[in-house]
Amino acid sequence: MSNPSTDIQRFSTLKGLGYEFRRGDLLRLALTHRSCGNPNNERLEFLGDGVLNMVVAELLFHARPDVPEGDLSRLRARIVRERTLAEVARSLQLGDHVLLGPGELKSGGFLRDSILADALEAVIGAVFLDGGFDAARELVERLMTARIQALPDAEALKDPKTRLQELLQARAFKLPEYQVIDESGADHDRTFTVVCRVEILDEPIQATSTSRRKAEQAAAQRAIETISHRESE
Amino acid sequence: MSNPSTDIQRFSTLKGLGYEFRRGDLLRLALTHRSCGNPNNERLEFLGDGVLNMVVAELLFHARPDVPEGDLSRLRARIVRERTLAEVARSLQLGDHVLLGPGELKSGGFLRDSILADALEAVIGAVFLDGGFDAARELVERLMTARIQALPDAEALKDPKTRLQELLQARAFKLPEYQVIDESGADHDRTFTVVCRVEILDEPIQATSTSRRKAEQAAAQRAIETISHRESE
Repeated sequence: MSNPSTDIQRFSTLKGLGYEFRRGDLLRLALTHRSCGNPNNERLEFLGDGVLNMVVAELLFHARPDVPEGDLSRLRARIVRERTLAEVARSLQLGDHVLLGPGELKSGGFLRDSILADALEAVIGAVFLDGGFDAARELVERLMTARIQALPDAEALKDPKTRLQELLQARAFKLPEYQVIDESGADHDRTFTVVCRVEILDEPIQATSTSRRKAEQAAAQRAIETISHRESE
Repeated sequence: MSNPSTDIQRFSTLKGLGYEFRRGDLLRLALTHRSCGNPNNERLEFLGDGVLNMVVAELLFHARPDVPEGDLSRLRARIVRERTLAEVARSLQLGDHVLLGPGELKSGGFLRDSILADALEAVIGAVFLDGGFDAARELVERLMTARIQALPDAEALKDPKTRLQELLQARAFKLPEYQVIDESGADHDRTFTVVCRVEILDEPIQATSTSRRKAEQAAAQRAIETISHRESE
């Protein structure tokens, strides 16, 4: 096997990327994890994150002409989240080319999602520097269009508290009220118990989780299920 | 005075913007607040936010070649925050052109920062749609370069908790510990009292504020001051 650090050739192009770098050093830098010390791909990741967010915003703006801003944000979050970016990075076999320092060893070829997602953003930033906005835009479009088309309805991506609120508003009921009724455990291992009171349900709905926010979301989800169940009776 | 809603002419250009729209309807839409109903400027704001964040990322990337990613993020946040965008919008007298519905009346020509900041982002989005990326980039560069040059050192923008942590790490001391020792008041009017324990200070430092986060930051700030004071003795 060749040593990636001396195999300059591989750093002017990457299988599946569909882009040939003029400056191979930029691609190499984009694939250099911070465990290698300085310089590394973190600044390129910052730049690529901006390019990615903007191009995905543009693609969604055109793909979903009737969707309001809040839904566009939620849809975008699905595309630019770490898990999705790591999937895309794996489809490009980016992990085979990422340079790691001694602090970050691959175990069985497995790389953490965060390392892959960051490297993909850095590669997008590197393409932007090397080939300009149009080249970077084309790359993001190529990588993301199928995933954008496969996105569910924006409605399905809303969190339970938002859905509960909209469901109640649509029926002209009062907004739900949330209250923390118990907090326990040590600082690093706390649990929160929340009740959610809804006008049309006689009993408050209770849920417990590791944060106030999660407990509220769980209670809202149960309230939605209770209301749907009751309305279908 | 002319009625803005019938004065189409003004919607192909805006004093100080330095850009003439081919599609005046886009500028008009960018200046239409959601209080006017639908359609309004919210989708353009989503798009413009992406363009703004990306171009500011690029400008900072080049303006601060030696600054790590975390500092670039903090510097960008200063530029794209509501208060700064509202200042830029006021310098363009954008408020004179924003179309408001009956729910949002101007009082003495005063418009809320959020309305102005959103309108500015929407105008950037409209320029991007009308003239392409280069036109939008040029606009953001023109509006923001002086503010980017005037940014302080990234160090000065760090929050007190971050600075305290770095200060202790540099002296090879243990990290500070924060603990909420009191929470009181009604749900909508809560106060949090926090203590911050630092290895080199005999007494814990206490602070109270309206959120846990704010109380921790205030305690960290006091800890930094106490340490600096002691070291200068």
